[in-house]
Amino acid sequence: MLTTEPSTEKATATKSTHVKSYAAQDATSGLAPWDLERRAPGPHDVQMEILYCGVCHTDLHFARNDWGISMYPLVPGHEIVGVVTSVGEHVKKFKTGDIVGVGCMVDSCRTCDNCKNELEQYCSNGNVLTYSWYEKDGKTITYGGYAKQIVVNEDFVVRIPDTLPLEKVAPLLCAGITTYSPFKKWNIGKGHKVGVVGLGGLGHMAVKFGAAFGAEVTVLSTSPSKKEDAISLGAHKFVFTKDEEQVQKLAGYFDYIIDTVSSPHDYNLYLNMLKSDATIICLGVPPEQIQASPFPLLFQRRNIAGSIIGSIAETQEMLNFCADHKITSDVEVIDMKDINHAFERMEKSDVKYRFVIDIATL
Amino acid sequence: MLTTEPSTEKATATKSTHVKSYAAQDATSGLAPWDLERRAPGPHDVQMEILYCGVCHTDLHFARNDWGISMYPLVPGHEIVGVVTSVGEHVKKFKTGDIVGVGCMVDSCRTCDNCKNELEQYCSNGNVLTYSWYEKDGKTITYGGYAKQIVVNEDFVVRIPDTLPLEKVAPLLCAGITTYSPFKKWNIGKGHKVGVVGLGGLGHMAVKFGAAFGAEVTVLSTSPSKKEDAISLGAHKFVFTKDEEQVQKLAGYFDYIIDTVSSPHDYNLYLNMLKSDATIICLGVPPEQIQASPFPLLFQRRNIAGSIIGSIAETQEMLNFCADHKITSDVEVIDMKDINHAFERMEKSDVKYRFVIDIATL
Repeated sequence: MLTTEPSTEKATATKSTHVKSYAAQDATSGLAPWDLERRAPGPHDVQMEILYCGVCHTDLHFARNDWGISMYPLVPGHEIVGVVTSVGEHVKKFKTGDIVGVGCMVDSCRTCDNCKNELEQYCSNGNVLTYSWYEKDGKTITYGGYAKQIVVNEDFVVRIPDTLPLEKVAPLLCAGITTYSPFKKWNIGKGHKVGVVGLGGLGHMAVKFGAAFGAEVTVLSTSPSKKEDAISLGAHKFVFTKDEEQVQKLAGYFDYIIDTVSSPHDYNLYLNMLKSDATIICLGVPPEQIQASPFPLLFQRRNIAGSIIGSIAETQEMLNFCADHKITSDVEVIDMKDINHAFERMEKSDVKYRFVIDIATL
Repeated sequence: MLTTEPSTEKATATKSTHVKSYAAQDATSGLAPWDLERRAPGPHDVQMEILYCGVCHTDLHFARNDWGISMYPLVPGHEIVGVVTSVGEHVKKFKTGDIVGVGCMVDSCRTCDNCKNELEQYCSNGNVLTYSWYEKDGKTITYGGYAKQIVVNEDFVVRIPDTLPLEKVAPLLCAGITTYSPFKKWNIGKGHKVGVVGLGGLGHMAVKFGAAFGAEVTVLSTSPSKKEDAISLGAHKFVFTKDEEQVQKLAGYFDYIIDTVSSPHDYNLYLNMLKSDATIICLGVPPEQIQASPFPLLFQRRNIAGSIIGSIAETQEMLNFCADHKITSDVEVIDMKDINHAFERMEKSDVKYRFVIDIATL
């Protein structure tokens, strides 16, 4: 019957498929197996079998509805590495067998100034996040990478350089691009003194990029035990920020501070460490307002900036940079079934430095 | 005896003089007549008879010790215009009879990077403010321009263009340079959409400079009654910020917002009005922390910056720019004895737009 009825055949070809995943059913359920529905690849879509998916702090925030915007069932995961299993008829950039990645976005309006200027992470009409978001149709909910398979428009898929170990690449799709992008935007490098606040998933990548770009990198941490790791990751200095004497010496020291902390913390401590005209770049989303005293801000003409991820083009550039500089994330690979325990450990910053799910265990 | 004893003669020549002024004796006294002591001009000093002194909101903060750093007796005033009455032997830039100005600073370290780069307003070792501050000797307290006379190192004196009415020039020494400097620092002008928050002493100057630099200027105000004035000062648009519909339309609209308000206010309202990568420049010092939600900051890569006054060179440049563009402050000239009443009116924003004391009435 299908062969005699092309329109029906087409409908069949675009039927959705059921995909194994791990989902939160509500804010308190934790994650458990669930079958999600994925669309069949449309003409511009890439379908991939997911190999690894990084575990970002955002996943935890969304699973628990910390920001009040979660939609359940919720399948987290936006640090996705996989292998292409099928492509739509108009797909030009990818073919079956390619190793590819998907980060935090799977679509955007393509028409606003930001989209036209390769800044689709700041799409004025709202981009489509990889999970717990509405597709451009305004009704289909997106599901992330804690799943066997995903289908994404080719414009939001990046190519993974074949020289890097895939489990260590996954976190580059969020933690990597989030920390790489500020270095490019603010042109941070040789001759700059850069402070990195927090040595977690984002912070350890900021240290690696800072060193690779030739900046002098100082890790600013409330955990003196992190000193050795900081140095081995490439930091030139380490300052325990509860030691007032060390903090005093840093007054007016930095050209840039990259603040990766998403728990409430004292921004004025870091503002005072900036030179005149210098900038603290906030990458973490704390649950409270960012509070800054007007005195350190105004009286040295300092800046507080925010930044999120990066564009797709910049993500590709970052991946290529990582291949050239042999930069990957430090990871602990876990089985899918251990995700709830991993969330617990992540909450205590007990991970060096990113959990990555081996999706084969799902 | 003096003629036969040069060293004594010199000592006599450098004896301080008593000068009529208005001072606060403590945080609650209000201002009243007081005789202050000024040094005789040293070799690099300019002595001037003060003609006009503007009344800045900072004067009120200091008189009442709002920031906890006031030293009494306290003579406010840092928008000073006067005529040179005497110069030290090494003074090169000024001579008796010159019309000159003094702003918020009277000295700085001259050795730090900022001082060497004509950014002495951000002197890393601490500059000397015009009143209620310690001179570089660490013990002599400075007294401001609510007085008959002042003595200032020539490097911190500017020349007043002779084409401008002096009473309207006085506020340029603080309100003027404070609003001019951000336009230069951020290179704001043609093609830029600029919002000005608050239409007071600083705000009305920001509007004038914005228009002069060719930007599209929108006044953002909680007082709909200010619309007419805003337009007549040169603003192209006026938005009543309690009208939600008007505010909604401004989402992502501005390249820069110049925030002149020093009372507590909602920074997120204005952050949301900025384009991606755009900047709100805070010029007011509110008594509370500046609070910003991480979402509007990070998710459009926006910036919060602070700025204070400007350098001496920039102040001179601003005065020359004002002469070229016939820009002055809108003022109400008052008698010295009416200063306490002026403070009261200023607290209610009941002034268009700056009180200026006619020092002849002292």
